[in-house]
Amino acid sequence: MQQKGTLMVVSGPAGVGKGTVVKRACELSEGKIHLSISATTRAPRPIDCEGVTYYFKTKDEFREMIANNQVLEWAEYVGNYYGTPRKPVEDALSRGLDVILEIEVQGAMQIKKNFPDAVLTFIAPPSYEELEKRLRGRGTETEEQILSRLETAKGELALMGEYDYIIVNDEIEQASRDIITVLRADKLTKHFYFKNEQ
Amino acid sequence: MQQKGTLMVVSGPAGVGKGTVVKRACELSEGKIHLSISATTRAPRPIDCEGVTYYFKTKDEFREMIANNQVLEWAEYVGNYYGTPRKPVEDALSRGLDVILEIEVQGAMQIKKNFPDAVLTFIAPPSYEELEKRLRGRGTETEEQILSRLETAKGELALMGEYDYIIVNDEIEQASRDIITVLRADKLTKHFYFKNEQ
Repeated sequence: MQQKGTLMVVSGPAGVGKGTVVKRACELSEGKIHLSISATTRAPRPIDCEGVTYYFKTKDEFREMIANNQVLEWAEYVGNYYGTPRKPVEDALSRGLDVILEIEVQGAMQIKKNFPDAVLTFIAPPSYEELEKRLRGRGTETEEQILSRLETAKGELALMGEYDYIIVNDEIEQASRDIITVLRADKLTKHFYFKNEQ
Repeated sequence: MQQKGTLMVVSGPAGVGKGTVVKRACELSEGKIHLSISATTRAPRPIDCEGVTYYFKTKDEFREMIANNQVLEWAEYVGNYYGTPRKPVEDALSRGLDVILEIEVQGAMQIKKNFPDAVLTFIAPPSYEELEKRLRGRGTETEEQILSRLETAKGELALMGEYDYIIVNDEIEQASRDIITVLRADKLTKHFYFKNEQ
């Protein structure tokens, strides 16, 4: 029985630490998790690296990807496109790897609609106050940006109920192990059992 | 936030090794799992121990327990009553312990109906042939009993789809860890999150 991997969406507000948690979970999985790399039309920044942080595309290229059904989900954000290239995800899943998409809530809702087997996981802060503290703590944003991110966070937290699992990121190591737990639990659901039996 | 524990039902055909798996999971949990002890009206056998293998009751006592709503589920089997005393389970849950009920499918269906938050887990054999091999291997039953248990197993396996999780007991240690995984995953579901937030 060749089990297909689990498609997991991870979302959460800016500053909650989801990138760190996902990266650590990937390490803990010892090569069993593939992290999806998004495509975007925004200009590369100094810390960016093609194919590592993003696949950088022109707007025409991106629109062609959409037209050819080559993205699993996509959204427009501040005048740029962001999306998940389909092929690397499908290849990894069919090799039995679990795949994590670290994407925004709008993209997550598209995945939920189109891939009912996907597992939607939300990384929540212990509290709204703690989120604010973490955002200020990282010192990478202006006050205006912080307030804007906190405003966005409210909308994101309101959509938590659309997710299957909610992992409170109180402590990175525990939250990362919880990602691993959810991926394993998914393979123990009756749904997964009967899907793979056929 | 005082989280109530998870109520987990574990069922599976005779010979699948569910008793061993549940006991091992209990050890792995380091005291966080309470194993429920059933009450029965059947006569104690030499290996039985009051309050350890069962609580032994007269039929009148058992009927009174039913009448007073003191059992979570009960069934009649070969002329005897079997059931789960309510109080020890509720006490353990409210102390934050997870509680495992190792019960038959009929009892499991009663729990599912009355406790929608309960997590139903079925321990399945890797195959029907392997189950037969294990049953014969333990050498505690007559041929007639083995055939009868295999016949019962068919009915039980047919009800697997009523359970939330299916753990294939290929290897005891892995199956035991899977019980722990399911108990943790339950506490990461959005349902659990919102239940405890209120």
